[in-house]
Amino acid sequence: MVRISLDLMGGDHGPQVIIPGAAKALERHPDIRFVLYGLEAECLPILDKYPKVKAASTFHACELAIAMDEKPSQALRRGRGKASMWQAIDAINRDEADVVVSAGNTGALMAMSVFCLRTMAGIQRPAIAAIWPTVKGESIVLDVGATIGADAQQLMDFALMGGAMARALFEMDRPTIGLLNVGVEEMKGQEDVREAGRLIREANLDGIDYFGFVEGDDIGRGTVDVVVTEGFSGNIALKAAEGTARQIAEYLRAAMSRTLLAKIGYILAKGAFDRLREKMDPRKVNGGVFLGLNGVVIKSHGGADAEGFAAAIDVGYDMVRNGLKAKIETDLDKYRATRAPEGAPTGTGDEV
Amino acid sequence: MVRISLDLMGGDHGPQVIIPGAAKALERHPDIRFVLYGLEAECLPILDKYPKVKAASTFHACELAIAMDEKPSQALRRGRGKASMWQAIDAINRDEADVVVSAGNTGALMAMSVFCLRTMAGIQRPAIAAIWPTVKGESIVLDVGATIGADAQQLMDFALMGGAMARALFEMDRPTIGLLNVGVEEMKGQEDVREAGRLIREANLDGIDYFGFVEGDDIGRGTVDVVVTEGFSGNIALKAAEGTARQIAEYLRAAMSRTLLAKIGYILAKGAFDRLREKMDPRKVNGGVFLGLNGVVIKSHGGADAEGFAAAIDVGYDMVRNGLKAKIETDLDKYRATRAPEGAPTGTGDEV
Repeated sequence: MVRISLDLMGGDHGPQVIIPGAAKALERHPDIRFVLYGLEAECLPILDKYPKVKAASTFHACELAIAMDEKPSQALRRGRGKASMWQAIDAINRDEADVVVSAGNTGALMAMSVFCLRTMAGIQRPAIAAIWPTVKGESIVLDVGATIGADAQQLMDFALMGGAMARALFEMDRPTIGLLNVGVEEMKGQEDVREAGRLIREANLDGIDYFGFVEGDDIGRGTVDVVVTEGFSGNIALKAAEGTARQIAEYLRAAMSRTLLAKIGYILAKGAFDRLREKMDPRKVNGGVFLGLNGVVIKSHGGADAEGFAAAIDVGYDMVRNGLKAKIETDLDKYRATRAPEGAPTGTGDEV
Repeated sequence: MVRISLDLMGGDHGPQVIIPGAAKALERHPDIRFVLYGLEAECLPILDKYPKVKAASTFHACELAIAMDEKPSQALRRGRGKASMWQAIDAINRDEADVVVSAGNTGALMAMSVFCLRTMAGIQRPAIAAIWPTVKGESIVLDVGATIGADAQQLMDFALMGGAMARALFEMDRPTIGLLNVGVEEMKGQEDVREAGRLIREANLDGIDYFGFVEGDDIGRGTVDVVVTEGFSGNIALKAAEGTARQIAEYLRAAMSRTLLAKIGYILAKGAFDRLREKMDPRKVNGGVFLGLNGVVIKSHGGADAEGFAAAIDVGYDMVRNGLKAKIETDLDKYRATRAPEGAPTGTGDEV
């Protein structure tokens, strides 16, 4: 049994999408038990339409929902203890759930998760890991927005956590890890990235295979299983790639509707186009994973439909089934053991 | 007349691609006069095959070529005063050229350009500006790799220079400028970006229209004419987008060759696919522009073919014809006039 807590009020469409999404995930994984949090008047009528979800769930009425555009600090102030988002996260603390999934706003979800679950012992800052489609399959990219300007030690932590996640998600023994960098050599400002490379190499963890530096175009190429970077550049990379995919889809649409021959060609090749669309479909790779907290939090895209939200639940399911948290803890223990007993965290030396 | 200096030895194919590229550009712009630098034995036989280029050129024999994988510091040490790359840049100092174009290695070209031309008075650090295809046309993105971790004042300078370049390249009066940022609010680590926003707004330059923050997916959407960011994230964004475009092209190829119907469809729609390919063709938007130096330096992709190199020459030609350097200087003067007479550069307050 995997116990999954859902914030029914998150996302652009709230329970109208989340509950049907839960139904889809439940079909694939009948051993899921849901703990649901939401406003009674909005949720119960929809829940009644999905008897299988209802039968596999416990519903908890909440008095408050966090808005998609609410500032994290305000969400925390207003929603602490009361909002469906908070309650869904807190279910982990109360040992009522193994993982929480929310399509709510990222900033509020991260702020509440950090406040409610706290960072794991030995991890300074959380990371958001994205599952990125590549030519070879999928890779993990972290951090995509939680820790802007992560320093060398934090990048080292991200490598460790990303490696554990790859083992859990891809069911592999020794994922390859690359540090995102720019190609031009001898540039200033990469001290943290270089130092992180040194730390990862020296840690010599047996659960990860350190590849070295990779560049932006290596992500889509699938050069490594896990790409590690700080949150600003990771977020920019993710959004730039999404933007490019959307842009090309638009070019393609325009090109295929310009002439009669192109239109006929499109109809004949429709099966191929459908497969292509599926491959480029962000719903299929929905679900950012918050790493470094005392509990697994899955963030679904706010605009996800039922299929997309179900994909986010799938990720949460896999993370629990394959013991993500235990894998991170094991690696952390091994990592700590490799370091001097005094164990003062190694600074990068170039900061205040 | 536009005087363009070329480093014939740069790029993966050297004079074999550069000279034919020069021929293509010359056809489009018969008022170009080339100043050519290269190894005599390699260049002259090819130049003889292109009599029109030869007639419009002065060739200077050099004794040294910079390798594509040479480290910037080594290139500078070894090539100073002697290499074709150095000589081509130095032609600007000797007032023999208005702009230099090289497909040589980016790090070496930047190091030599800074050393040889120096940064403009009032500009602390150079930037590399990329011309980025968007749904609406083209935008300028800077910096894509020269100044890692640019601070607020440097980002302000980039906005000013990017604005001047947009006016020169797109021949518009008041380009819109956006600062690249991540969407999640109230995150630490964005102090420089916020402070830069304040500086740009306060400078209130009449040559730029400050839009505010934009995110990674706004680049391809063409939300603004100029996207400003520091060099690390800019480089990662550029490469991530390139990687995604290549990845989708690969998906498309695979999808179109899977079934007989798809193959027939592809043949019928070939005209449309060719147009799409052209739109995605990096050769058409080749040419990064080094900004902030006492002279305009155009960097072509190392792997560019003749068409691609010609596109880089076109960019250089436009920059001279439309007075890029004068435009930057005018804006700098106006900007300086808005600041206190003591004029100590505004620090960001959060650095050592």
